[in-house]
Amino acid sequence: MEKSSYDVIVIGAGPAGWSAATFLVRANIKTLVIGDLAQSGLADAADVQNFVGFPKGIAGTELLDQMRQQATGQGATFLKGEVTHVEKINNRQETKNNFLVRTAAREEFVAERLLLAHGANFIKVNLPGEKELVGKGIHYCALCDGPLYKGKEVIVLGNGNYAAEEALQLVGMGAKVKIITHAIEPNIAPVYQKLLAAQKISLTIGKAEKFGPGITISLKKKDGVVEEKTDAVFIALGVASSMVFAQKLGLEMNGNFLKADENGRTNVAGVWVAGLARGGVNQVAKSVGEGASTAVDIIKAITGLPQYLDHT
Amino acid sequence: MEKSSYDVIVIGAGPAGWSAATFLVRANIKTLVIGDLAQSGLADAADVQNFVGFPKGIAGTELLDQMRQQATGQGATFLKGEVTHVEKINNRQETKNNFLVRTAAREEFVAERLLLAHGANFIKVNLPGEKELVGKGIHYCALCDGPLYKGKEVIVLGNGNYAAEEALQLVGMGAKVKIITHAIEPNIAPVYQKLLAAQKISLTIGKAEKFGPGITISLKKKDGVVEEKTDAVFIALGVASSMVFAQKLGLEMNGNFLKADENGRTNVAGVWVAGLARGGVNQVAKSVGEGASTAVDIIKAITGLPQYLDHT
Repeated sequence: MEKSSYDVIVIGAGPAGWSAATFLVRANIKTLVIGDLAQSGLADAADVQNFVGFPKGIAGTELLDQMRQQATGQGATFLKGEVTHVEKINNRQETKNNFLVRTAAREEFVAERLLLAHGANFIKVNLPGEKELVGKGIHYCALCDGPLYKGKEVIVLGNGNYAAEEALQLVGMGAKVKIITHAIEPNIAPVYQKLLAAQKISLTIGKAEKFGPGITISLKKKDGVVEEKTDAVFIALGVASSMVFAQKLGLEMNGNFLKADENGRTNVAGVWVAGLARGGVNQVAKSVGEGASTAVDIIKAITGLPQYLDHT
Repeated sequence: MEKSSYDVIVIGAGPAGWSAATFLVRANIKTLVIGDLAQSGLADAADVQNFVGFPKGIAGTELLDQMRQQATGQGATFLKGEVTHVEKINNRQETKNNFLVRTAAREEFVAERLLLAHGANFIKVNLPGEKELVGKGIHYCALCDGPLYKGKEVIVLGNGNYAAEEALQLVGMGAKVKIITHAIEPNIAPVYQKLLAAQKISLTIGKAEKFGPGITISLKKKDGVVEEKTDAVFIALGVASSMVFAQKLGLEMNGNFLKADENGRTNVAGVWVAGLARGGVNQVAKSVGEGASTAVDIIKAITGLPQYLDHT
């Protein structure tokens, strides 16, 4: 089956993503937004009083919903979901299928360009030993480093769909994989649960405490700390984040954030970033502004109009 | 009489200014906004559909008024007015009286810091001969170049309060001054009209056509083109703009815009710029975002808190 194709896929359903999507569709650019309003940092704001235009304040959830209405009402497609994988699948410029995006429901889409507006999520655990072993047994990207562990034993540390996706990719590369949750309960979608079962990938409840040489992982369980030996640990906590996208797409980072110029352009052609994922002030206004200016830059790139202006 | 003193004076009552003012007062920073909602570019937008949060669209004038309510409701002082002069009056850092701001009503205020959010207005006329004679008879800043013309004859070209302010400054420096309107009708506030009359500064209706050597100004009047000889022409069209502020404060420019870093800091300590005056995309969202991030930078500078975050 042919995958649904878009001009731009926006990853993230927060202020930066909705602002960008609104501008894009107004320029007749076919745009898909993938994300979850509830995952935006703005959803936690009970009463937003510093985003001008709302003198009485507004609940973050309500503001997000109005942003969604505004973008979809003008033509943006919204898929409530979680992106678990992105990949550059074509190195030719200006084709329709430069990037592949996969969700937690195992749906796949292709796009000419990507706008990363997923906010800030950090997948490092920052445990003792982690930093020292990065690249030498501790990894953050199956697509990047998985091939090193063909025939070897690998632990994926994480309890969500993103961890499941990484585990499946590692199995596909010939590794023997198990998942350790690093949390009390896993939170994995049914489609991923089935795929894990089919591949006989085990799930162990336990919390990593430190990484030792070897690789040893010290694991706190109900009945005490145990040591597990393995060839590699792939850390895949939470949801796919800047570091994941950076590694999968070859993006440069700036600390925990994705490096971009003032128009949101990254070092990889066809990939832009806006909002908190780019660093800076964690405020709705800043994200909305960056969404707008980044979208205008994407529009200029697509249309070739250097002076594009969205006359409201 | 002691002049009213503020921590920050925001020049401009558009999206960038209101967004910044909202953040500033929420951090207990005494803030004065001087401007005119009707002068914001946003006032001309009949139906804003790309500023997310308003899925049904909103009139620019209504959006501006809600922004004003939001900032003043949280403590910002608003003075509807036109800034005709700014000046650095103290070179010591961290005093309360670093900058003087004068309005068309001849009110004066002092501030520790300035945020320029006045949008884009250009005072050049771009007539033949103008470019060649800049600095050699054609000038844009009485405060900067007026002293060269003590005892000389000077023409101020402009029909508003800003032109009147420049003319008065030149008289104060010992020049013999007249104003040529470069428009059908002058538009000068009564207080300035009185001051001009007291100084016997004449007002001639006429439109400049070119500048020749000498300095000659070719002036189109009702009954044909006449040539006027003078020692210098000070161009002071429209309202005070980026070029005026740049010259009066020593700010670097980038084409028609004020040069600033990503936090809005200019090359002059204590002066920030946000919104269209900084260049870039002419969109509400971008200006609101820059107002927010610039205000956060000012707050950090004032409070010394490097990690200030406005939790909404």
